[in-house]
Amino acid sequence: MTMEKLIKKAYVESVEGRRQGDKIKEVKEIQKYILNAKNIVVPNKTKEKVKAINEVLEKFGIQKAKHLKFYTDACDLNRTPAISKALMALDIVDCDLVIARGRLGVPGSGSMLVIMDSKGRILSAALSPPHIIHKKSVEKAVKDEMTTALKRIGLNEKHES
Amino acid sequence: MTMEKLIKKAYVESVEGRRQGDKIKEVKEIQKYILNAKNIVVPNKTKEKVKAINEVLEKFGIQKAKHLKFYTDACDLNRTPAISKALMALDIVDCDLVIARGRLGVPGSGSMLVIMDSKGRILSAALSPPHIIHKKSVEKAVKDEMTTALKRIGLNEKHES
Amino acid sequence: MTMEKLIKKAYVESVEGRRQGDKIKEVKEIQKYILNAKNIVVPNKTKEKVKAINEVLEKFGIQKAKHLKFYTDACDLNRTPAISKALMALDIVDCDLVIARGRLGVPGSGSMLVIMDSKGRILSAALSPPHIIHKKSVEKAVKDEMTTALKRIGLNEKHES
Amino acid sequence: MTMEKLIKKAYVESVEGRRQGDKIKEVKEIQKYILNAKNIVVPNKTKEKVKAINEVLEKFGIQKAKHLKFYTDACDLNRTPAISKALMALDIVDCDLVIARGRLGVPGSGSMLVIMDSKGRILSAALSPPHIIHKKSVEKAVKDEMTTALKRIGLNEKHES
Repeated sequence: MTMEKLIKKAYVESVEGRRQGDKIKEVKEIQKYILNAKNIVVPNKTKEKVKAINEVLEKFGIQKAKHLKFYTDACDLNRTPAISKALMALDIVDCDLVIARGRLGVPGSGSMLVIMDSKGRILSAALSPPHIIHKKSVEKAVKDEMTTALKRIGLNEKHES
Repeated sequence: MTMEKLIKKAYVESVEGRRQGDKIKEVKEIQKYILNAKNIVVPNKTKEKVKAINEVLEKFGIQKAKHLKFYTDACDLNRTPAISKALMALDIVDCDLVIARGRLGVPGSGSMLVIMDSKGRILSAALSPPHIIHKKSVEKAVKDEMTTALKRIGLNEKHES
Repeated sequence: MTMEKLIKKAYVESVEGRRQGDKIKEVKEIQKYILNAKNIVVPNKTKEKVKAINEVLEKFGIQKAKHLKFYTDACDLNRTPAISKALMALDIVDCDLVIARGRLGVPGSGSMLVIMDSKGRILSAALSPPHIIHKKSVEKAVKDEMTTALKRIGLNEKHES
Repeated sequence: MTMEKLIKKAYVESVEGRRQGDKIKEVKEIQKYILNAKNIVVPNKTKEKVKAINEVLEKFGIQKAKHLKFYTDACDLNRTPAISKALMALDIVDCDLVIARGRLGVPGSGSMLVIMDSKGRILSAALSPPHIIHKKSVEKAVKDEMTTALKRIGLNEKHES
């Protein structure tokens, strides 16, 4: 079944009051979409985060992402900066998948990494505390978020024993 | 400084390209807002999640939340169900703070607990994998999310040694 | 130039503070997208509005829209019901273009007809006062909105003299 | 009844499938909110549009708006620039009402003037074609939009006979 058909079925279940939570075939469809993505972009001012993201994608057997260098600061004047950054990438390039990292909400609310499909739908995400609280390097924080965002929807590193 | 002034300053830093990440005074302002909230609501069809949330709030010395019983299923026909559920609560009642739990994105994408202020701004959040993956009880998942959402912005349980 | 390239250029102009308003080639790109759409859907509980919309589309030489019968009431528990209805249609079917009609904002705020592309971007729209104020038939209101939404971006009826 | 109670009632009607369109008391509540607003802001880079808006507000017996001078260009890298501009104003100042004018959707889609309350809810709006199509002066376009946005929800100029 396509993503659209699965979503339609889930929406009908919600309206009719008989939705019981996420289904395994919905999770599998998200996995399939991410594993099959051919054209993945990461909008960002600088290259470093893209490198960190690509190290994780490779471990999971996912296509490497391209850096979409752009003025992403503008997305911070917004209530959901990370989600807005992902949508902005969709607006300006053709791609299968966007991986965007930015602030979760208001200044001080920490960061969010979001995985979005070609229609602007959110497939997965991960959060980090504000940097001044977690004290991790940005590189480590981005890798942890990317890993969490994939693992939480059941994806695994290829050579995990 | 008020939340509005801090946000304005942060926005100016972003536009002028000199924003360096969340600041400790921004995080403190979020903490203060949550600790001082007098009227907290949790929109939900049933009472169970409200009970789990209140057990956590109490440990952190935060005002107990009221159950806003409502037709929250409608929010699932949406790209960001948890965020939409929080906004819907704001639309229909007066309150300081909304704590809403719902789906993160598309069906299969797992859940999000979001903490929103009286203007609809996101202060913190936490995510869980889809239930069929984590296998936790809903009660445990909600408590873990509520705890994570508070700890990630530097709040702590009152009697923690 | 593709829509994506035009949008990217416009975004750069905005960030660099030299954007001067909409350009004729941007408007032409929107026109071309709408005139070339092959698969247009109108999400709605009933058929009547689809019929009214199709009468207008035909006059403008645009492909007829298909009725996407669905539970669109859920979109009314939302801050931008018409826009949410269009996005919901994108979530559940594959299409080039969505034309959705719903409430503009809060209850009492009147209606909006929105034209959205396959990525969820708004191409045009039109508004009507609340029905109790304009007293037009729904059919007449929908036709007027559809006509206005097309004319405001420079499209014209085919046999207009 | 307060705005919140009216919205709650309307949401229940929608979920239960018995909503019949906007009600006169909902429209009256919007009117009352706008007529009683004490602190109105207009976010904009320059003063000219604020002046045009205030000339119209005065004719309708509404409190004059203050200019919120800010970097509003950032809101154009967004799918709903006018709505985002209004929300950005709410983020950075305390006010009863925001009147924001910006682009409706994608570059080329023309403009939108939106009236938003203190919680971020849309009360009314008006649209204009892209400037290169209507050829009106910006001042005239803004005045026409402001007038339309008020008249469509039943407000009238004070000395109209």
